[in-house]
Amino acid sequence: MKLQDIYRNYRRDLRLIEKELGKSIRTEHRQLNQSAAHLLDAGGKRMRPVFVLLAGKFGDYDIQRLKNVAVPLELIHMASIVHDDVIDDAATRRGKQTVKAKWDNRIAMYTGDYIFARALTIASRIDNPEVHRVLARSMMEMCQGEIEQIRDFFDENQSLIRYLQRIKKKTALLMSVSCQLGGLVSGASPEHVRRLRLYGYYVGMAFQITDDVLDIVGDEKILGKPSGSDLRQGNVTLPVIYVLQRGSEEDRRQILEYLRTKGQRDSIEDILQGIRTSDGIDYAHALADRYLKKAYAVLTRLPQGKARDSLQLIAEFVGRRNY
Amino acid sequence: MKLQDIYRNYRRDLRLIEKELGKSIRTEHRQLNQSAAHLLDAGGKRMRPVFVLLAGKFGDYDIQRLKNVAVPLELIHMASIVHDDVIDDAATRRGKQTVKAKWDNRIAMYTGDYIFARALTIASRIDNPEVHRVLARSMMEMCQGEIEQIRDFFDENQSLIRYLQRIKKKTALLMSVSCQLGGLVSGASPEHVRRLRLYGYYVGMAFQITDDVLDIVGDEKILGKPSGSDLRQGNVTLPVIYVLQRGSEEDRRQILEYLRTKGQRDSIEDILQGIRTSDGIDYAHALADRYLKKAYAVLTRLPQGKARDSLQLIAEFVGRRNY
Repeated sequence: MKLQDIYRNYRRDLRLIEKELGKSIRTEHRQLNQSAAHLLDAGGKRMRPVFVLLAGKFGDYDIQRLKNVAVPLELIHMASIVHDDVIDDAATRRGKQTVKAKWDNRIAMYTGDYIFARALTIASRIDNPEVHRVLARSMMEMCQGEIEQIRDFFDENQSLIRYLQRIKKKTALLMSVSCQLGGLVSGASPEHVRRLRLYGYYVGMAFQITDDVLDIVGDEKILGKPSGSDLRQGNVTLPVIYVLQRGSEEDRRQILEYLRTKGQRDSIEDILQGIRTSDGIDYAHALADRYLKKAYAVLTRLPQGKARDSLQLIAEFVGRRNY
Repeated sequence: MKLQDIYRNYRRDLRLIEKELGKSIRTEHRQLNQSAAHLLDAGGKRMRPVFVLLAGKFGDYDIQRLKNVAVPLELIHMASIVHDDVIDDAATRRGKQTVKAKWDNRIAMYTGDYIFARALTIASRIDNPEVHRVLARSMMEMCQGEIEQIRDFFDENQSLIRYLQRIKKKTALLMSVSCQLGGLVSGASPEHVRRLRLYGYYVGMAFQITDDVLDIVGDEKILGKPSGSDLRQGNVTLPVIYVLQRGSEEDRRQILEYLRTKGQRDSIEDILQGIRTSDGIDYAHALADRYLKKAYAVLTRLPQGKARDSLQLIAEFVGRRNY
C-alpha cells in the first residue's frame, strides 16, 4: 500500500488543505510569492496535515476547525525546511532546487521567517490557548534541536541517546503535536489525545531513523538528493554511530579520520560503502521497527475504525518506505 | 532630558521586565544561552517595553498582564536584529560583537528563531485573540520589509514612498504595535488605542529616519558601529535618495557609480562626505520633524497626565538623539 492509497479516503479534505496552503502563502511580494510557492510546489508527503485530520476523527470532526491547525503545522514544517537548507548548504531537495540555491541564503532565511509568521497568523484564528502554548513550545524545541544538530556536526563521540534526542526535536515532535492537536481541537478525550500524541511520537522517531538510513542506502533518483548528504555536512546519524561504536577497525578508522578532518575529502563513496555493508543499517532498521511496534500497540488502545486503520497503514508505510 | 531620565519614573516595572527578559531566554542549551544572553546584554533602548507600559497607563494598568506583551515585543525586536545582522554581515552593533560575528551565521539564524519562538511562548499566556492576530500580522509584515530591503539593495531608482514603506515595516510597525497592545490589554478605549497606535507609528518613522541620518553623520564611538554601514551594504537611505534626486552633479555621479558596481570600492569616505555636506541631511531631519509634529498632535488628543508627558519626552528625545 502506498501513501497515496491511504490518503485517497481523505482526498476532498486534503485538497482543501492544499488550497488553503496555497492561499496562506500568497502575497503581493513577488519575491516571497515565488520562493514560498516554489517550496510549496516541491510537495512533500503532507504527513502533518494528514495526522491532524485523522486525529480529528477521534473527536468531533470539523474540517473548518482542523484546517486552522493542519495548515500552520505544515507551514512550520516548511519553514524549518528552508532554514535547514540554509544551514545544510543543500542544493536540491526532493529533486528540486532549494530556495537558497535558486535565490540566496538571505532570501531563504526571510522566506522561512515569513512562512513561520504566516503559520502564526492562521493559528491565531484558534481560540484555544492550549493550542498556542503547544505550538510555541514545539517551535522552541525544534530550534533547540537544530542548534544541537549544529553542535554535534563532525562530533565522533555521540551516544545513541543524543542522537535520539536530536531526531525527536527535529522530526518526531511536530508529528506528535500534529496528532495531539488534531485530537485536542476536536474535543477527543484527554486519554485519546495522549495516545494520539504518543503514536505520532513513535511514528516520527521511526520516520527519521528510516530517513537517515535512506540517506545512506537510498536511490538518489527516488530521494531527489545525492546520497550520503548527511555525512557530507557532518551530520552523524544512527548507522554511522553504530559503526563508530561496533564497526570493523577499518570502517571506524575511515570515519574517524573523516570526522576529525571535518570532512576534508572529495569523495566519501568508500566510507558510505563501508557503512552500507556494516550491521549499522540492520541495527537502525531494527530500532525503527521497535518504535513502530510501540505505535501499533498504542493504536490498539484507541477506538476501532477507519481512522485507526489509516494510522496503522501510515505506520506500516514508514517501516517500508524507500522515499 | 535623556532617555534614562524619562525611564526613571518606571524604574521598578522596567527592572521587572528586564528580569523577565533574562528569564525568558534562559535554557539548558549552552550555545543558545550564550548567544541569546550576549544579545540581551548588548542592551538597547528597550523602547518597545516602555511604550507598552506607558500605553498601559491609559487603561487599567497591570504590570503582570503588561509584561506578557512587553517581553514578547522586545524579544521579537531582538530576534529581528540577529537575523538582520546575518543579512547585513554586521560585525558589531552597539559597540559589541554581533552573534554572527562571535559565533556564525547558522547559530545566529537559529538564535533568532529560538528567540521568536520564546516570544510566542510568552505571548501565548495572553488569552485575547486580538493580541495574537496583531502580533502575527506584524511579524509577517516585518519579514516582508526585510525582503523588500534586500530587493532594494543597490537600487538607484528608489522613490521616497518606497523608502517610507520599508522603514514603516522595519521599525515603525513594531513601535506602533507596542503602543497599541499596551493600551489594548489594559482595556483602554478603542479611540485611545487608535491614537496610541498612531503615536507609535509617527515616532517610529521619525526614529528610523534619524537612525539612517546618524548612520551617515554619527560618531562611530557613540553609535558602536562604523559609520556609513548602511550604504556599505547597499542600503539606500533617505539622505542618499535625496542626493540621487536633487544633489550636485558630482555627488550624484559618485553614488550612481558606487551603486552600479554594487559597492566595489574600498573606501566610501568621500561619498559619505558628499552626502554629509548636501541638503539631504537637513531634508531628512525636516521629514523626521514632520512625523514628530504629528506625534505631538495626536498626543494632545489623549488624556493628560504623567504617561502622556513621558510619551511627549520620548518623542522629543527621538528628535534630538545622537545614539
